Amino acid sequence: MEAARLHEYTEKMGEALSIDEIDRPEPTRSDHVVVEVEGAGWCQTDNHIIEGMWTPYVEQELPMTLGHENAGTVVETGDEVTTVAEGDQVICHPVMTCGKCRACRVGEDMYCENLEFPGLNTDGGFAEYLLTSERSVIPLDTVDPVEIAPHADAGITAYHAAKKAVDELYPGSYAVAIGIGGLGHIGVQALDAMSAAEIVAVDLKDEALDLAEECGADYTVNSGDEDVAEAVESITEGDGARQVLDFVGADSTTALGPEIVAPGGDHHIIGYGGDIHQPAQDLVDAEMSYRGTLVGQYSELEELVALVEQGIMDLRTTEYDLGEINEVAEKLEHREIEGRAVIRP
Amino acid sequence: MEAARLHEYTEKMGEALSIDEIDRPEPTRSDHVVVEVEGAGWCQTDNHIIEGMWTPYVEQELPMTLGHENAGTVVETGDEVTTVAEGDQVICHPVMTCGKCRACRVGEDMYCENLEFPGLNTDGGFAEYLLTSERSVIPLDTVDPVEIAPHADAGITAYHAAKKAVDELYPGSYAVAIGIGGLGHIGVQALDAMSAAEIVAVDLKDEALDLAEECGADYTVNSGDEDVAEAVESITEGDGARQVLDFVGADSTTALGPEIVAPGGDHHIIGYGGDIHQPAQDLVDAEMSYRGTLVGQYSELEELVALVEQGIMDLRTTEYDLGEINEVAEKLEHREIEGRAVIRP
Amino acid sequence: MEAARLHEYTEKMGEALSIDEIDRPEPTRSDHVVVEVEGAGWCQTDNHIIEGMWTPYVEQELPMTLGHENAGTVVETGDEVTTVAEGDQVICHPVMTCGKCRACRVGEDMYCENLEFPGLNTDGGFAEYLLTSERSVIPLDTVDPVEIAPHADAGITAYHAAKKAVDELYPGSYAVAIGIGGLGHIGVQALDAMSAAEIVAVDLKDEALDLAEECGADYTVNSGDEDVAEAVESITEGDGARQVLDFVGADSTTALGPEIVAPGGDHHIIGYGGDIHQPAQDLVDAEMSYRGTLVGQYSELEELVALVEQGIMDLRTTEYDLGEINEVAEKLEHREIEGRAVIRP
Amino acid sequence: MEAARLHEYTEKMGEALSIDEIDRPEPTRSDHVVVEVEGAGWCQTDNHIIEGMWTPYVEQELPMTLGHENAGTVVETGDEVTTVAEGDQVICHPVMTCGKCRACRVGEDMYCENLEFPGLNTDGGFAEYLLTSERSVIPLDTVDPVEIAPHADAGITAYHAAKKAVDELYPGSYAVAIGIGGLGHIGVQALDAMSAAEIVAVDLKDEALDLAEECGADYTVNSGDEDVAEAVESITEGDGARQVLDFVGADSTTALGPEIVAPGGDHHIIGYGGDIHQPAQDLVDAEMSYRGTLVGQYSELEELVALVEQGIMDLRTTEYDLGEINEVAEKLEHREIEGRAVIRP
Repeated sequence: MEAARLHEYTEKMGEALSIDEIDRPEPTRSDHVVVEVEGAGWCQTDNHIIEGMWTPYVEQELPMTLGHENAGTVVETGDEVTTVAEGDQVICHPVMTCGKCRACRVGEDMYCENLEFPGLNTDGGFAEYLLTSERSVIPLDTVDPVEIAPHADAGITAYHAAKKAVDELYPGSYAVAIGIGGLGHIGVQALDAMSAAEIVAVDLKDEALDLAEECGADYTVNSGDEDVAEAVESITEGDGARQVLDFVGADSTTALGPEIVAPGGDHHIIGYGGDIHQPAQDLVDAEMSYRGTLVGQYSELEELVALVEQGIMDLRTTEYDLGEINEVAEKLEHREIEGRAVIRP
Repeated sequence: MEAARLHEYTEKMGEALSIDEIDRPEPTRSDHVVVEVEGAGWCQTDNHIIEGMWTPYVEQELPMTLGHENAGTVVETGDEVTTVAEGDQVICHPVMTCGKCRACRVGEDMYCENLEFPGLNTDGGFAEYLLTSERSVIPLDTVDPVEIAPHADAGITAYHAAKKAVDELYPGSYAVAIGIGGLGHIGVQALDAMSAAEIVAVDLKDEALDLAEECGADYTVNSGDEDVAEAVESITEGDGARQVLDFVGADSTTALGPEIVAPGGDHHIIGYGGDIHQPAQDLVDAEMSYRGTLVGQYSELEELVALVEQGIMDLRTTEYDLGEINEVAEKLEHREIEGRAVIRP
Repeated sequence: MEAARLHEYTEKMGEALSIDEIDRPEPTRSDHVVVEVEGAGWCQTDNHIIEGMWTPYVEQELPMTLGHENAGTVVETGDEVTTVAEGDQVICHPVMTCGKCRACRVGEDMYCENLEFPGLNTDGGFAEYLLTSERSVIPLDTVDPVEIAPHADAGITAYHAAKKAVDELYPGSYAVAIGIGGLGHIGVQALDAMSAAEIVAVDLKDEALDLAEECGADYTVNSGDEDVAEAVESITEGDGARQVLDFVGADSTTALGPEIVAPGGDHHIIGYGGDIHQPAQDLVDAEMSYRGTLVGQYSELEELVALVEQGIMDLRTTEYDLGEINEVAEKLEHREIEGRAVIRP
Repeated sequence: MEAARLHEYTEKMGEALSIDEIDRPEPTRSDHVVVEVEGAGWCQTDNHIIEGMWTPYVEQELPMTLGHENAGTVVETGDEVTTVAEGDQVICHPVMTCGKCRACRVGEDMYCENLEFPGLNTDGGFAEYLLTSERSVIPLDTVDPVEIAPHADAGITAYHAAKKAVDELYPGSYAVAIGIGGLGHIGVQALDAMSAAEIVAVDLKDEALDLAEECGADYTVNSGDEDVAEAVESITEGDGARQVLDFVGADSTTALGPEIVAPGGDHHIIGYGGDIHQPAQDLVDAEMSYRGTLVGQYSELEELVALVEQGIMDLRTTEYDLGEINEVAEKLEHREIEGRAVIRP
């Protein structure tokens, strides 16, 4: 089968992956599931992987097929699989988990001690077929796999962050979403669906802010034109934002925290790339937190799929062939992708 | 009456405060309470105030009487005070709160929008008498005001942090307490009283680690002799610490977070003075948080007083006269105070 | 001034209250506030008070002016009131609270140890003027006091219950609301605004179910025509309801709990009048709870007012003169009130 | 092998089970584990099963081997078992769970949709060998299986209830434990280990109250001699108990709820057999809940084992041979068992 593979770390996105002919994966465990990939979303993290930015955090053996936002059709299952069968359409939670460690048992499956992460440390979904496991697939009822694929990672990451924020929000309070791209526009919709708080969207581009409004933002701030801290001060009438969702994670956005977060509030770090540089006293004075946020749990992806099936969440996607994959990598690097790119292997 | 007052910001602790003769405060509001101060704890924050380190955060008008860890006897009350009366012994919550803003109403009184903070932005307790209000005093049953005074700030700050940590701990999990001084030794006791997790104490001094063990620590790490990250890795058998309570807040201690915190865990910033410098990706990869922690709520001081009255919490104090106050300031600067210094005005 | 007062407990709603001429209340405490009542909602609890059903729970001295859902204009304030002034339009939280007991301090002000409850144990708002206190009034920005008055009790009671339920709901889960009357139709809207769960409305009347759909219910069950347990089983595909909000509280509705609640779920008792009769084993087997729910907190009324000001919550009201009050009592007894009756004194 | 089996429901405990010779179980699934049973606790629920009291709740096919509190040594494992091996000593969580349904994934494995419950709906551990699965066994480090066996159900049920209660307790608040038998004496220890609240133990027998004191109770009430409501009123100085743990679940104990629970508090139903009969208004007036509580989660049994390994929890057991099993059934019926009976097959 054809697979888009990384052979060495590089800064040159235009020639990052090569389309190789490799063997189709086979089930070797009783819970294995092989999925014919119909849609596989391209993620900023793919660019980061290509640059080698994940090597300090996980072990990677090259060549490796990338792609961790996958959806498609089950074509083969291990002996003891009972919840899906050949022909079922599914979306794949990005990680394969053991179901036996404490993290899996208490619902924090993204911390699984025996985690396999296709596209990050094993072969992923920019290929005709993907090997995954029963604990990672969610059957789809009415939704097209291609349209929903990016929710497998972008979606639940944004949803997971929004859900943590919603726990701290109440009517009359404010949430600020910074960066209304692939993740941010899902995050705003999730905030809107699950809370009655006021949502302030911040971005450099007016089109992104227009999208934010369509997604349910009550206020928009163009950070190129306006001082964000002053704008938030004014919108919130001096109260500040109880929750900030930072989908960018640059030095300049993390620095906003102490300026815009209300006492006792949180600045969620979802995007990454930059650093936090802040006096400890800033966190103490306002009792604020910087809270890192990872991909969401399997159960959260189920919840997100329920929202999609109910027509509540809308995803902006553009489709590409497997052969166009390096072009996609380059375009995202230059912020030229509208919504989310989906590869159709 | 005599009061130890700050006239100008200085680095010279040995001559920081002068003993002035000023008017005794009088109640001017129906809820005012005047307390004859019997004990007033000296806090690291007093040193920070003297250095001018709080000027970016609060408005201070000099000269000002310092002292925010106060306990003593009620001598006069406003017209509508009903819960305490002349002669009652009380400990004073460090802040005076309005009881009307949302923060006060939902129990987060330390974020009161109309906060007065004696010893930080109004006259404090290094004086014969202190003006406070009904919402700030807690009657004492059997405990001596002098012995309990430092709990008014050091105590509830440590207790507040411990309580947040306890919510995330479970039997078999680990909490790391960094810095076993005035706050840390209370924090360890609070962790021990309210959880069944394993407690790891970290400090540079062996005497501090001995104190930690008396307070309930299960493991100790001398950070001068051992690599803290390796020690925690070994003690927790690779799991990491679910909660870290950083009573120091130096660059070097905040940097420990991503190395020792378990996935999904928290590094609580209680001490301050240093900075956080960390890649956003570190927080994302382990879904860890840096959580600033401020002084606790009035209700938490009540809880802490209940623990003290039950004999569960032990406080190490040394007593000094008002005239020795600059000597205390200097000693703390050189880490020469055992436990907590209490001024007896 | 004129006031509608209860002189003795009776079953005869048509002659329950008499319109008496009594003195206008005056502020006697520094925090007192006198409000000219513009709208005062009639509540099922008023019928219960008239019948003497609250005598085992609170001390009542007759004659007493009823009316605990009040809104109007501030006409006089005590000496130390700072947050409202003469001429301000306000809605009144139903209880007057001390701000000093633990309940008030931790945000559970409805459990205030020094509670006064106008219309339940002191004179209420079916009168030209009402004596209340600063901690009980919430300024209105754009909303008419007459239109919002019933939110003072019916509204926050429903909102309070919905908020507790929302904490346990997630997309794809189900909430069942039983009884879509004055409280229920607010509860459904609150669930819809603050969660993305599916809402099932249950009532005996088709008009009530139509109203439920307008308020955001996804499914309706006419309990006169259908077996509720079977209907919920079918709608939830066998999962049951994670949360049940019982706005009726009759024997027959409380008995539904074990039949329709999902494992680990809750049956919230909001309406009352009937009993719970259930084997302990039923609660154990499904780990379900019966959770009583009282009027909400001041902060929750603020949140509800924010929703109303944002146009998110809609209230059905019909206006009546003070002289028509016994007619209202009688109509409600016979379930002939559409939405909520508001008296205009 | 020998197994104690129920052939028909009966009230006659003295001849309830017969010792049959049946086949040793074999692994038939990749995750199966066969355990040689060394200790199997006898539970009040075994009496209830014998009486047929569980037939309305689960499907049971007789004859069936009882016994759901099992510990022993692994003797055989399925092909893909990785976390335990032959020779490992283990305690068995009472239920076998699928690891795939939402309940399992979010940590509420006791609500597993595909639950098998050895001793309740499949063959249990009053036998030489038990068939269970990898997700149900917890390796033991230093503790003897015979001594720890009853924690497999009695232990985690009490621990689970205590953990829910601890979330609502704080220093200075009160928890009441009713019934200090097999479960109650563990519950009191768990409360003591994980909270700093005051514990009030209630029982009819003075020996039980003596045991409660050894387990950490601060106050005891003999319900034969004293009016429980009055005693709690006096001990709590009128505040009531924030949490009540009812290990009995009789009509008379559930009726105590509204009399002794503080506003907003909970009456946890752990024991069962009796009914709740209560006006809905009682729950509303004090915003109290009746919360059913089931056996705890696998992760909670891990936590409990950690406490036992640390020497924090103490269990009172008496050992019996398999042949004495009906005698044990009868003794428990007459409340003649001290602590917990453990069968050694």
